Amino acid sequence: MRLSRFFLPILKETPKEAEIVSHRLMLRAGMMRQEAAGIYAWLPLGLRVLKKIEQIVREEQNRAGAIECLMPTLQLADLWRESGRYDAYGPEMLRITDRHKRELLYGPTNEEMITEIFRAYVRSYKNLPLNLYHIQWKFRDEQRPRFGVMRGREFLMKDAYSFDIDEAAARKSYNRMFVAYLRTFARMGLKAIPMRAETGPIGGDLSHEFIVLAETGESGVFCDSDVLNLPVPGDDVDYDGDLTPIIKQWTSVYAATEDVHDAERFEREVPADKKLNTRGIEVGQIFYFGTKYSDKMKALVAGPDGVDVPVHGGSYGVGVSRLVGAIIEACHDENGIKWPEEVAPFRAAILNLKQGSADTDAACEALYKELSAKGVDVLYDDTDQRAGGKFATADLIGIPWQILVGPKGLAEGKVELKRRADGSRENVTPAEAVARLTT
Amino acid sequence: MRLSRFFLPILKETPKEAEIVSHRLMLRAGMMRQEAAGIYAWLPLGLRVLKKIEQIVREEQNRAGAIECLMPTLQLADLWRESGRYDAYGPEMLRITDRHKRELLYGPTNEEMITEIFRAYVRSYKNLPLNLYHIQWKFRDEQRPRFGVMRGREFLMKDAYSFDIDEAAARKSYNRMFVAYLRTFARMGLKAIPMRAETGPIGGDLSHEFIVLAETGESGVFCDSDVLNLPVPGDDVDYDGDLTPIIKQWTSVYAATEDVHDAERFEREVPADKKLNTRGIEVGQIFYFGTKYSDKMKALVAGPDGVDVPVHGGSYGVGVSRLVGAIIEACHDENGIKWPEEVAPFRAAILNLKQGSADTDAACEALYKELSAKGVDVLYDDTDQRAGGKFATADLIGIPWQILVGPKGLAEGKVELKRRADGSRENVTPAEAVARLTT
Repeated sequence: MRLSRFFLPILKETPKEAEIVSHRLMLRAGMMRQEAAGIYAWLPLGLRVLKKIEQIVREEQNRAGAIECLMPTLQLADLWRESGRYDAYGPEMLRITDRHKRELLYGPTNEEMITEIFRAYVRSYKNLPLNLYHIQWKFRDEQRPRFGVMRGREFLMKDAYSFDIDEAAARKSYNRMFVAYLRTFARMGLKAIPMRAETGPIGGDLSHEFIVLAETGESGVFCDSDVLNLPVPGDDVDYDGDLTPIIKQWTSVYAATEDVHDAERFEREVPADKKLNTRGIEVGQIFYFGTKYSDKMKALVAGPDGVDVPVHGGSYGVGVSRLVGAIIEACHDENGIKWPEEVAPFRAAILNLKQGSADTDAACEALYKELSAKGVDVLYDDTDQRAGGKFATADLIGIPWQILVGPKGLAEGKVELKRRADGSRENVTPAEAVARLTT
Repeated sequence: MRLSRFFLPILKETPKEAEIVSHRLMLRAGMMRQEAAGIYAWLPLGLRVLKKIEQIVREEQNRAGAIECLMPTLQLADLWRESGRYDAYGPEMLRITDRHKRELLYGPTNEEMITEIFRAYVRSYKNLPLNLYHIQWKFRDEQRPRFGVMRGREFLMKDAYSFDIDEAAARKSYNRMFVAYLRTFARMGLKAIPMRAETGPIGGDLSHEFIVLAETGESGVFCDSDVLNLPVPGDDVDYDGDLTPIIKQWTSVYAATEDVHDAERFEREVPADKKLNTRGIEVGQIFYFGTKYSDKMKALVAGPDGVDVPVHGGSYGVGVSRLVGAIIEACHDENGIKWPEEVAPFRAAILNLKQGSADTDAACEALYKELSAKGVDVLYDDTDQRAGGKFATADLIGIPWQILVGPKGLAEGKVELKRRADGSRENVTPAEAVARLTT
């Protein structure tokens, strides 16, 4: 992408309404724009990151055997009356009446709808286990939306729903999602720690939140610092095999949110030098809720003995749009964002330090063509901005690899390859720069 | 994907509520499920098609220089008061009040919001031309939703918005979208004909609808049959070059919807044996509306002389979810859907005609592994269904290539390769089948 043809409205001033760094940087970097309280338009740079996060979530859901579908944003109120949650949900549910006076709502989650779909088609244990997920916009009418996409009202969530014949099978489904989440967040460059959590309005008796440690997080957390160094399962993990050793390893080390914190156990089990009491950002939560919805909504399947039993369910959420903010909270410095490579809007940027000069123009064009042809997602800053401005923009928007092309270096056949993560720079030939980014 | 692990709820009965063939086939093939009047959940098979269509639309928008963003589904009523459309839009607009009594609406289109974004950031002709698009769910509260996804209430639309300094430049932007649409629909295996059309609530004085001919279409159309054989621009089309010869070629042959039909000209210009009067399905519409929104919403840019002028705009829609139905209307037979390869949910299916038999199981597993490894999107029917049922399912869901693996053929080292498009079958070795699908 040539920057001269892209739409990247960088802000010079730090917006006053933004209270936390991710919100400030997303506005300054031209990633999004507020259209109403807690409702944002994703500008092209922000959308690129959102899509990369979404794709990682999708790939890891698929790898774990979940199947993608897509439920609508609007739902019938009557569906929620079946589960009893229509009245229970309170003012955070956006209630809507259509032209025929039918009551609808903007879905904040989809347990009811997926249960309705399940009971319409599935009758036998032979079709289980089943895990259906979708990645769709949700709405939660927050009393006081704030912190940009971290606590927006319209937000993008991945929610998966598992169906099993009994609790033992349902716990296996739960474990598959547990492992998928470990992999999902690690691929984004995050250390997200699973912590025992309360179940809240979803219900059930087993739940983990996945928490990224950050001072700006909304929850207090307590953990053993050893949990930060546990190994994340590789892409060869066998989801059909026994995952309990992985789950045991991750759940035996103390880690809990303040809501369910056991001060006595924390004191007893965790050595003083490993006690971590900080704050965290929730980026995912998983639930096993048994027959809570299938009982009320009559989602029954015949077991091997031919007798109908209510199906056992779990649900598994990832805050896709919230993750954009969470990653920035974890990956930034005073100059801007430092995207992990897997979620960067562009993997590399070419900075033409003397636009309009024949030698730098030719070298940049050649690099741009070659990198694009080799499938590298590259942004070519071909604007008339002075070199200092180009450095500042590339750092602000957090491009992991920056190729600086100036007349002095070129005279010696060299460009500078800069890594945003640590600021290191190296003089290399253009061919070496290409090789570095493609091997 | 192994069918035993997929979620494909085929219906044996033809649903009574479905009036047209695409609606019937989408329900029978387990592609979607109605959740409320005109509101559908996309089941896994349907979502795969929707995503492929969306991706073709995206690639052709990008190729034409449009830049993707993503606006939210909900919008502020006040934004629409600026343009005067809040009251004008009528009962098809879904109006919503949030917990703080703020008036919102579920966006049926985004001219106002994109103009708000534009005026916030763009001040100079130097940043033009600009074309921003998004692919987002919209809502139109139809009085009587029907025909499945063809006239749903919640629907997925691609809408692009161009901004130019004057009418001449705006017409160039219009032409780029015109050409992009020719390519977009052709890639999906459709003959979509651009026809002069009325502008309706979007406004403006220049508009074309892109229409797929089908007896079940909602509009009457008149055209010269020569228009069906015009060449579609290749992927080497130069969007920076002069596109007027292409536009002239496509607009000089008579083609119009009944709303703007000129009976006298039709009579005069079109030879009797080329007169076509049939019905059509609108799959896209493009508009040039000049300064209609920029005047009212004060979206001004400085021209080369430093004087502020209202920006010239156009908007360009593609009905992404509607296209799923439109393609089925154009591509089906009595046995089911015949997907064009580019939009098929799976490109190939492997039908194990004797599941549980060592030889067919081994041959199918080998084919499945090899095709998957080579990047072919393949569905392996590994269920216990009898052979006849597997044939019927593969034809119903419209898989373009079907590899039939039975014990008799295997004894001679052969499988059958069947093409859904014409029903032709051929005995080939498994290696030949793989080669056919990968070269």
